[in-house]
Amino acid sequence: MDTRDTPSRIEIGRTTRIVALEAEDIRFPTSRGRIGSDAMNRDPDYSAVCITLRTDDASGLAGHALVFTIGRGNEVQAAAVHTLCALVERRGVSEVLDDLGGFARSLIHDSQLRWLGPEKGVMHMAIGGVVNAAWDMAARRAGLPLWRFIGELSPEQIVAAIDFRYLSDALAPDEALAMLRRAEHGRDKRITELLQRGYPAYTSSPGWLGYSDEKLAQLTRQAVADGFRTLKLKVGENLEDDRRRFTIARAAAGESIAIAVDANQRWDVAPAIEWIRALAPFRPAWIEEPTSPDDVLGHAAIRRAAAPVPISTGEHTHNRVMFKQLLQARAVDLLHIDATRVGGVNENLAILLLAAKFGVPVFPHAGGVGLCEMVQHLAMADFVAIGGSMEDRAIEYVDHLHEHFVDPVRIRDGRYLAPTAPGFSTEMREASLHGFAWPDGPAWRFNTPLPPGAGQG
Amino acid sequence: MDTRDTPSRIEIGRTTRIVALEAEDIRFPTSRGRIGSDAMNRDPDYSAVCITLRTDDASGLAGHALVFTIGRGNEVQAAAVHTLCALVERRGVSEVLDDLGGFARSLIHDSQLRWLGPEKGVMHMAIGGVVNAAWDMAARRAGLPLWRFIGELSPEQIVAAIDFRYLSDALAPDEALAMLRRAEHGRDKRITELLQRGYPAYTSSPGWLGYSDEKLAQLTRQAVADGFRTLKLKVGENLEDDRRRFTIARAAAGESIAIAVDANQRWDVAPAIEWIRALAPFRPAWIEEPTSPDDVLGHAAIRRAAAPVPISTGEHTHNRVMFKQLLQARAVDLLHIDATRVGGVNENLAILLLAAKFGVPVFPHAGGVGLCEMVQHLAMADFVAIGGSMEDRAIEYVDHLHEHFVDPVRIRDGRYLAPTAPGFSTEMREASLHGFAWPDGPAWRFNTPLPPGAGQG
Repeated sequence: MDTRDTPSRIEIGRTTRIVALEAEDIRFPTSRGRIGSDAMNRDPDYSAVCITLRTDDASGLAGHALVFTIGRGNEVQAAAVHTLCALVERRGVSEVLDDLGGFARSLIHDSQLRWLGPEKGVMHMAIGGVVNAAWDMAARRAGLPLWRFIGELSPEQIVAAIDFRYLSDALAPDEALAMLRRAEHGRDKRITELLQRGYPAYTSSPGWLGYSDEKLAQLTRQAVADGFRTLKLKVGENLEDDRRRFTIARAAAGESIAIAVDANQRWDVAPAIEWIRALAPFRPAWIEEPTSPDDVLGHAAIRRAAAPVPISTGEHTHNRVMFKQLLQARAVDLLHIDATRVGGVNENLAILLLAAKFGVPVFPHAGGVGLCEMVQHLAMADFVAIGGSMEDRAIEYVDHLHEHFVDPVRIRDGRYLAPTAPGFSTEMREASLHGFAWPDGPAWRFNTPLPPGAGQG
Repeated sequence: MDTRDTPSRIEIGRTTRIVALEAEDIRFPTSRGRIGSDAMNRDPDYSAVCITLRTDDASGLAGHALVFTIGRGNEVQAAAVHTLCALVERRGVSEVLDDLGGFARSLIHDSQLRWLGPEKGVMHMAIGGVVNAAWDMAARRAGLPLWRFIGELSPEQIVAAIDFRYLSDALAPDEALAMLRRAEHGRDKRITELLQRGYPAYTSSPGWLGYSDEKLAQLTRQAVADGFRTLKLKVGENLEDDRRRFTIARAAAGESIAIAVDANQRWDVAPAIEWIRALAPFRPAWIEEPTSPDDVLGHAAIRRAAAPVPISTGEHTHNRVMFKQLLQARAVDLLHIDATRVGGVNENLAILLLAAKFGVPVFPHAGGVGLCEMVQHLAMADFVAIGGSMEDRAIEYVDHLHEHFVDPVRIRDGRYLAPTAPGFSTEMREASLHGFAWPDGPAWRFNTPLPPGAGQG
């Protein structure tokens, strides 16, 4: 394969504009199979607001992204995206794509909208989605997959994309620039390596709480046969169940496979310590989300008391200020970034730089719908242009719902193959947009969603 | 005045139900006068989602609350309230009002909605608004103003209202119960004292950044003449301006008046320390929101370096887990609670208990629209049933938009008079709901709101 082929850049006119910001409410009835069930999320209907930035360019250039949710409230997320129309529509495409840092800041620091966060929750996720759609468009314009588009930006361009507000006590622009310049060394080699070998994956597919012991054992054996070297189990509802399930998974996986566990925020600090100590003999690769994602000091206390069991969090960490503190407080051994929780690619670049500075490996969060498609680009960009390492880390993989994407992830021998199509792999197929539209799409018209609270207790 | 008059309790039937949850988008064009302008919020249009819980009770019993925003995006906040209809409508009124803790938990821990936070941002504020409406209804049913309704709950009832999840490393239910039992002593005397003397207020009315020096001096003199002992100025745009404005305010107020300053999250950690040291000679009563509300460790670092200048935050602190950490990290000298940012009265009771345990005084945040009306009840309930003190603290007061409320705050000699009408003082007048409805009410029909970004830079 030609690993350094010339991209087919789309040349757009100076007057080309963004003419529409569209948001569609798409939901998949995953709760019917208890897919995705864990100690806090018992009945998710994997959902997304699918965002499209349309332009008046003759080529049809557009930008796609999605914001992931787990069902109820997806319409609130859609409303938050809609409210950004006034700030986005009619803007010049070049103006936006040539200054993605300025574009993100103009949304995040809107003086009225920031009251709704600031920089957290529904409004921040909506901004992140629109920002991600702009990055998708920028990569498409450049004719490159997003990971490679970022990987070929200059250190100055990456720094310009980042909002350093509230970060300077941990990472200043000058220091970031120096790190990125050091990482320029070997960048081409790493691009070639990615194209040849892909990036390590780990899988959470076997370990949902709602699965039977038999299904856990069977899926574990399958995952190992498929080449995965790390698996993850959901825990936290009942300690005896966790011990039994860990024993089953270990027997099925063998001793050489790493097995992580995920408590999905189930515990307070003291019970977390007790539970983790009880699981320590099973040698968990890490314990994920032991408590509230907001509890930086709680994670630090748990980590100190439960050492040497590695502690992690991040998929619900809402912005760079929280990631900064997790690192400053030495609260985690590894971090999970999410493509649609924080304010888009820009903020994830800041988080990847912070993690690199503090020497903490990043295991991106995925699963849901479209999360694998997106986060692979961030991990690969990190490998190429920031952190420079991939063998001590892995991207989460769950084998659901990829068929709905135009450019789905490709997994081979437990590794993500590097995407080659231009963009962020965020475009959903037309048939899926139609079929799972909520509440009137065919998937929902003759089926009733679970009533609120049905999954509780 | 009879300070212990018998309340006129409304008796409701066992089958009485909540029949509707309504949310109205109300906006006031305050940006036209630069009311509310500060270093981060330059052009707020004070807005609210006005919430009504309607019942089928023959008495017309209803619950009112509002979620405050500053303009754009208020419709997103309304959408978030609407999404709760399915979880609230058709519930029995007694079931809800007799277990307000269970009611709040059923919304906050909904297994799908919590993905949109968890417990932060638009969705958490919406839940807080609906929960506050239920407290308003409970106090109306009891025929008591909310502060007194809470003040007369048993320690067990207050503990049952609180969600201790993620708090137990700082405050466990048993410890809270012991604190509340100790505070039972003298409760009746404090109720009488409140009814006779009211609760201290401080005012931010003179100090908005958009006001001229002349207006600042004149309003400062007026505030002192009106009996206020503490004033607050907005700072953080320009140090020379801050010095000049502090000098003007000090000259107009005299030496015996406390003057606090509010930076509204303007600075990073190092610049905050530098700026605060520069303002220290003016003896600020406290420095409010020096940096990101999420930055617990940043506030702690600022407080250490800027000692002995008192540091505070809280109006944007999004839940009890963050307040817990601010206290555990000794990051603040005082705290500001907000009535509509966190998950309602229940979560504010948890925060007041945490503050009491750590010995940190609470100066509730107010202003905006309806914030004074609501937060007075929380401060007074704290005095009666939790903290037991009011002379070392004060409730913020801003003299705008009170005319829109059925039961507006009453200020005399720089003190909030204790409300006596049943409920949470949250009901807006019909004429105001009609007049400021967005986008079609008379106040907006012939006026164009400021375009997005008009207040920036």
